[in-house]
Parts: sequence; structure tokens; C-alpha cells
Amino acid sequence: MENPTLQEAEATIREALARRKCLIVVGNCWVEYHGRASSKLESGERILIVKEDGSLLVHRAKGYEPVNWQPPGCIFQTMIENETLIVKAIRRKPAEHVKVFFNKIYMVSALSLKDTGTFSLYASEEDMQKAILAEPWLVEEGFKPIAYEKKVEPGFVDVYGVDSEGNFVVVEIKRKTAGREAAFQLARYVDAIKGMVNRPVRGILVAPSIAKGVQRTLDALNLSFKALDPRRCAEILKRSETRKLAEFFGEQHDSRS
Amino acid sequence: MENPTLQEAEATIREALARRKCLIVVGNCWVEYHGRASSKLESGERILIVKEDGSLLVHRAKGYEPVNWQPPGCIFQTMIENETLIVKAIRRKPAEHVKVFFNKIYMVSALSLKDTGTFSLYASEEDMQKAILAEPWLVEEGFKPIAYEKKVEPGFVDVYGVDSEGNFVVVEIKRKTAGREAAFQLARYVDAIKGMVNRPVRGILVAPSIAKGVQRTLDALNLSFKALDPRRCAEILKRSETRKLAEFFGEQHDSRS
Repeated sequence: MENPTLQEAEATIREALARRKCLIVVGNCWVEYHGRASSKLESGERILIVKEDGSLLVHRAKGYEPVNWQPPGCIFQTMIENETLIVKAIRRKPAEHVKVFFNKIYMVSALSLKDTGTFSLYASEEDMQKAILAEPWLVEEGFKPIAYEKKVEPGFVDVYGVDSEGNFVVVEIKRKTAGREAAFQLARYVDAIKGMVNRPVRGILVAPSIAKGVQRTLDALNLSFKALDPRRCAEILKRSETRKLAEFFGEQHDSRS
Repeated sequence: MENPTLQEAEATIREALARRKCLIVVGNCWVEYHGRASSKLESGERILIVKEDGSLLVHRAKGYEPVNWQPPGCIFQTMIENETLIVKAIRRKPAEHVKVFFNKIYMVSALSLKDTGTFSLYASEEDMQKAILAEPWLVEEGFKPIAYEKKVEPGFVDVYGVDSEGNFVVVEIKRKTAGREAAFQLARYVDAIKGMVNRPVRGILVAPSIAKGVQRTLDALNLSFKALDPRRCAEILKRSETRKLAEFFGEQHDSRS
């Protein structure tokens, strides 16, 4: 639907929302948000997307992040007031709402998207290591990496650091369910480091999961396990690098305010 | 443009990319990503958005987050191979690329969006406090809140906790540039707590900035300053609550894998 009147647009949008279709609206709008904080977006031409699960996105011509958004589960209301078409998305818990005010609509598109495809993200042990170095709290709060690929007698320690109490920490990373061998490998690294320093040394096995019975082996060897999904590492890595980039540009142009 | 042939769509997409227009493509596609990790998204009907700054988003019918995305600055190539229209977004640093393969296109829309409106986010001191309680690293690494709105002789301490070395920490929050009075207020709280405990007590003033000369006052009173933007708090709050929600649903339905 191209260049509809506000009345035509409102009818189409209301029907699409009632039928839980995906909705794309392009037009001139301003946006208000009230909830855990408040925001106002002045008038401009933007893309509004409402998805079939009741999530909402307002996208500007620039930036990969939406300027306004609401997670799935919103309840929607549409109305025309003072020659303005208002799309209101309401959440109950926490109580918050977004109001999009359109005074011109260029396009309305109601879509039924068939999509059952699986998304699979593959991250390597190296990706997990990078994510831990970038965001050490992934291992535990207060953990500070000192070195990675540290050479010790039996091989290379994935990540080596100190915990919040000043103990040395040896981190062994596995991208798949860790078995007994991983626990023994970690124990050998911990023993090797213990021989070099006169401070307590802890060993943490980081993997998406551990095989049956391995917890007992870890307990016996006085080692601990931290569950970490390689896919989560890949997402964190991507976000943290992009955030740095965004902050860099943000400082230069203050593009987000 | 509705239901174009792949050739028609390719011509329109290529021109829109060359003219740095905003592009919306709806169609049946599959997606590959290679870079810091790798991902594959199987075939399904989705919305592709390419923005004028060279950012890319692939949205499914559900979820407020894009399934694939690239930040601004991508270089684009389009081609038709084996009755498939490929849109390729390439980044150099870090080296990564996304390939979107369309075998059917329902809609192509090339837009020139005029948008100069300002986005303003307002967060209260309470929002800043909530953000700090949810993400204590905002104050400093290793900080652990114990209480908030703690009553002491001169009034209420915004946030009260311990640092990574076991010292007590009093946090005073201001949502605007903090003046001298904020430093004195914090000093009174620190003194009041000192009279109650036999451990060192630190004071941290958290605000977006401090007025001229206030750093000297803080130094003299042995207090420190941590810069924190209330808008960042509002964003962090919104994200952290939504993430919890997403993780909750993720655990139940594993909707993202």
C-alpha cells in the first residue's frame, strides 16, 4: 500500500495487528517512550516494524540499532487524533509504552512470513578465549586475565589470571561437552603453576557442559566448572567490538543524542 | 516494487545501494556469516534492511533482535548465480562478511528518508541507582552492593557496598553535573559510616560530570569520582531486563538456536 491516507493506513494496520501479521510502515513520525526511563524522538522519516510476536522496532536511516524498540508481548492500540495516526505499544510488566505518531505515511506492508529455518552459530575455542579476554566476568566476577597461551611444562594454558581474592587462576576452555580428560589436563596445568608460585592456584574448566561423572572428578581434583556457551561468546565478541566502534563514533559525532 | 523477477530486483537493489538509499527487501532467503565466528540461517521468509550508512539487518517474523546484522560501513556487492540473488555485505576490519541468498522476492523498497530529529533519553537518579544495583561494575570492577537508601545520621545513602578489597563503599548519585555540595554530602555519609564500622570506608561520587574545581574538593576529602551518563543507565536497565526475559524464554523454548 503506497501513499495511503491516514484512515486507509489505520484500517490496514489495525487489521494486520489483529491478525498478528508482520507490519512495515514507512512515514514521517515522532516517538514517545515512558517506562523505566523516558525518551522523545523528534519528527523525521522512519521505518516502523511490528512483528507477529508483538515486538516493535523504530529504525532511522542510519545505525544498526533501532532508536526505539519493545520486546515481544506488547499489546497494540491504533487511533487517529488531530490528523495524526498513533500506534501505541503497551507492556504491563514492567509498565511501559511506546507511542509512534505519524502525520504522513508513504508505505504500509502487512506480511505473513513463513520461516522455520534454523539459525546456527559456530564459535571456536579461540572465539571463547577472545570473549573471555574481552569480558573476563564470563569466567567469574572479579577475574582479571594476565596472560593467554601461557607456556608451562605440559603445554599452553588457555587463559591465566587472578581472582578477586588474589589467587592465581588457570582457565581451560572446551567448546564442546568437557570430559574427564579435560579435567586431568587442567589439573596438570594447575600443578605446573603451583610449582612456580607461592600463592594459591585455582583451576576453572570453562565449557558449555560437562559429561556425566566429570563433576566428581573435578571435586576430587579441587577444580571448578563454569558453564559457557560458545555461541554466547560469539555474540558477546561481536557486540563488544561493535560497541567499541559505536562508542568511538559516538564520542566524535555524538550521533545517538 | 512488488513480486519483481530476481533480475528486476537486482537492478533496483544495485541502484539503491549505489545511491546510498535505505533499502527494504522482503523475500525467501538463507544467510551465511563468516568472521569472528560463523553462522548459517536456513531458508525462510524474512525482511532485509540496508541503511544509507551501510549497516545491514536481517529480521525474522519474531524477536526484536535481528538474526543477522552488520554495523555501518559495509561495502556491498550484488550478483545473480544459479537463479539466486546474492546481497553480500563486506567489512574489512575486522574481516567479515554476510551473504544473503534470495530465491524469491516479494517486495523491494528503496527509500530516501529525511530525518534530522533529535533523540533524547531522560533517566532519573532512581534509574541510575537501579542500573548500578543491576550492573555494579558501572561503579567499578568488583564492587558489590549490600544496601540502598541506607539510613544514616545525615540522610539516606544511595548505594552502599564493598569493593574488591573488602573496603566499605558509599556511592552518591547525581544525574546532572555534580557540584561542591554533592562532595560535601558524600563526605558526611562517609564520616557517618566510619563511626559505625572498623574497616576503611571509601566514597564514590557517581555523576555524568563534575563542575570546575570539584575534583580538588574530592581530592581534599579523599573521595573519588566516577563518570556515568544517566542515558547509558537507562539503556543498560532496559537491555538487562529484556535480556533476562529473553534468556528466560530462551531456556524454555530455545528459540534462538
